[in-house]
Amino acid sequence: MDKVSPLAPASFPEIPGIAGVRLGGIAAGVKYENRPDLFLAELAPGTKVAGVLTQSLTRSAPVEWCAKVLKEGTARAIIVNAGNANAFTGKAGMDGVKVMTGAAANAVGCDPSDVLVASTGVIGEKLPADRISDVVPSLFNSLNEANWPVSARAIMTTDTFPKGSYQQCEIDGVTVTIGGIAKGSGMIAPDMATMLSFVFTDANLPLELLRKLLRSGADESFNAITVDSDTSTSDTLILTATGQAAHKPVSDASDKRLKGFRTALNDVLRDLALQVVRDGEGAQKLVTIDVRGAASKRAARRIGLSIANSPLVKTAIAGEDANWGRIVMAVGKAGEKADRDRLTVAMGGIVIAEKGEGVADYDEAPVAAHLKGREIHIDVDVGVGRGKARVWTCDLTHGYIEINADYRS
Amino acid sequence: MDKVSPLAPASFPEIPGIAGVRLGGIAAGVKYENRPDLFLAELAPGTKVAGVLTQSLTRSAPVEWCAKVLKEGTARAIIVNAGNANAFTGKAGMDGVKVMTGAAANAVGCDPSDVLVASTGVIGEKLPADRISDVVPSLFNSLNEANWPVSARAIMTTDTFPKGSYQQCEIDGVTVTIGGIAKGSGMIAPDMATMLSFVFTDANLPLELLRKLLRSGADESFNAITVDSDTSTSDTLILTATGQAAHKPVSDASDKRLKGFRTALNDVLRDLALQVVRDGEGAQKLVTIDVRGAASKRAARRIGLSIANSPLVKTAIAGEDANWGRIVMAVGKAGEKADRDRLTVAMGGIVIAEKGEGVADYDEAPVAAHLKGREIHIDVDVGVGRGKARVWTCDLTHGYIEINADYRS
Repeated sequence: MDKVSPLAPASFPEIPGIAGVRLGGIAAGVKYENRPDLFLAELAPGTKVAGVLTQSLTRSAPVEWCAKVLKEGTARAIIVNAGNANAFTGKAGMDGVKVMTGAAANAVGCDPSDVLVASTGVIGEKLPADRISDVVPSLFNSLNEANWPVSARAIMTTDTFPKGSYQQCEIDGVTVTIGGIAKGSGMIAPDMATMLSFVFTDANLPLELLRKLLRSGADESFNAITVDSDTSTSDTLILTATGQAAHKPVSDASDKRLKGFRTALNDVLRDLALQVVRDGEGAQKLVTIDVRGAASKRAARRIGLSIANSPLVKTAIAGEDANWGRIVMAVGKAGEKADRDRLTVAMGGIVIAEKGEGVADYDEAPVAAHLKGREIHIDVDVGVGRGKARVWTCDLTHGYIEINADYRS
Repeated sequence: MDKVSPLAPASFPEIPGIAGVRLGGIAAGVKYENRPDLFLAELAPGTKVAGVLTQSLTRSAPVEWCAKVLKEGTARAIIVNAGNANAFTGKAGMDGVKVMTGAAANAVGCDPSDVLVASTGVIGEKLPADRISDVVPSLFNSLNEANWPVSARAIMTTDTFPKGSYQQCEIDGVTVTIGGIAKGSGMIAPDMATMLSFVFTDANLPLELLRKLLRSGADESFNAITVDSDTSTSDTLILTATGQAAHKPVSDASDKRLKGFRTALNDVLRDLALQVVRDGEGAQKLVTIDVRGAASKRAARRIGLSIANSPLVKTAIAGEDANWGRIVMAVGKAGEKADRDRLTVAMGGIVIAEKGEGVADYDEAPVAAHLKGREIHIDVDVGVGRGKARVWTCDLTHGYIEINADYRS
């Protein structure tokens, strides 16, 4: 489990500083030893925040806290610990949240209601929150604009590599930076729960616009990935905007000056989301699934996720087997309209089934070569409409079973 | 893969003959060699038939044929081959169906529209239907009331044991027999698709009542099991009633004389369904999940299936790990109402989490002993209502990956 995923990027990116954001990580010893496990970001006054939280109906205390802060839409700090998810700890859960947010608020000099919080790690164990509050003053003293690598490491649990991404673009001729970090390597790793991501920008955008851009970006990234179909009780995606870039205000989502920013934001979100899939438990292959010809975009998404979540499709990919029958099966069980007799399935760009039956004489050599690679592409046309969607997953291997079954909590 | 599942029953049951049903199996050599792979049942004139077919929207030609026959509600024969699913074979699919039903109709002396048909096996390969029609006359000559074991073997694909079950009961003081066979060992085995089950009785019941009893029984059996959440394009469950038992007619589902029959039918259906789970690919443990306290029966079922389909719950069971956090996660992702702070989870009858947090001092020894066994019981109370449901699954092991990934089609 210490081995870095074969799908990891070559190196951690050199994310530039973002005006109004100071960050860092430190070892609090919550569970891990000799590694950073506490992340803190200080946000300049006036920073706006948007978020997307887990849809789980049994969400954790930190997620409930964030929901309240996000309703107000401003924050001065984010504090995150790794090693203990502070989930299913009863009333003690909210007590832990108050210790964490209180410590961050003291350091930054704000109200605890201006502090976002997340916890990831073991479920059901009481959070030793004092260990966290004890080191917050030292951590605060270490914050700067450049501490991206230690920040990305501080939120890792079973991740095999730290995840970061950035883009720069222009609004009104002024350079704007978007940088972020993420963690996650299974929807829930072996008791080490959660997908978390924190993205920062200096763009000056109103709250409603920020929320709209994040929702739409999340839809094409974090909401379009799956490792094992399991949903964490703590999933949290936050976008903060300090507003310190010197461009003129942009208030409307349809404003043409936003085009570059939207693209850059979506690129960062997608890159971070794909890094989570690349670190999927036991993953040996990154699988991109394009569905088109569906009744709607939503239907295409559901069909894509049905394929991406099918254990039989995922094991076929692991076995480098061009098993299109399993893909057709997964289309059929999605519950969305599809025309069996107009169905087309391609792998690596080669059509292997069309009009509801296998192509008898398709060229097997390039398909076999494609399946031996690290990045697999599946195209499906379900033949009923114009809806399309792209989703990502990884293969299902012995590594997944080893991590999740050959382990005792 | 030739090894019999450790969860298999000790032996095949001695199913009595059912008046009006003659059955048998023979080797047609569709794909397998030296084993029966073709099943035929002759049903006496006047036999009523009810069925439950796959909900897949990409269902196979045999399933489409059965849907038409079941609308009429009478049949004179059932013909089933193993080794080739006759699915995704384009127009040739219906041609194969016509050859099979035509051969059975010729032998029995009826119209093809009175013949039910099913195929299970490889998807996407054209069915060599002539091999089937060639041996139907010999097969017909071998039919009798006692041929249950060869019939159960003739419909197997990757199953590791033949599946049969029966019950006898009384209607109006007259003995009635219900006997059936089934196959399935994954929702779709390695290219060897499908769950099939054929149940026969001599009871004299009107068609609408038969349909109602089967729907309700399927709901508590075949619709309450999952191996890997994948749905075959060919799933078929048929109940036939020859009406040759000498009891007076029963026309109403609320008739008290039906009580014993309903119980017996449900017992047969549940026994057959559980045999399918016991033969789940790679299964080492049979898992029973009882959900109560849900908003409705339907909600309880969805929560139960969310737990039963969770790769993380299934790998935890494989690892004999009392990982209640994963069960809580699966409750949360089901999308049905649950009260996190009133949630109770028990394993082997021992409560290990309640009121939204782990029980600090629960007795671990009996839980650990329970998890080492072959039959695992999980109880969940979600604390919001009176809805309850029971579902069954198996664990997710290296065996599943071996069967499905370490295999080339």
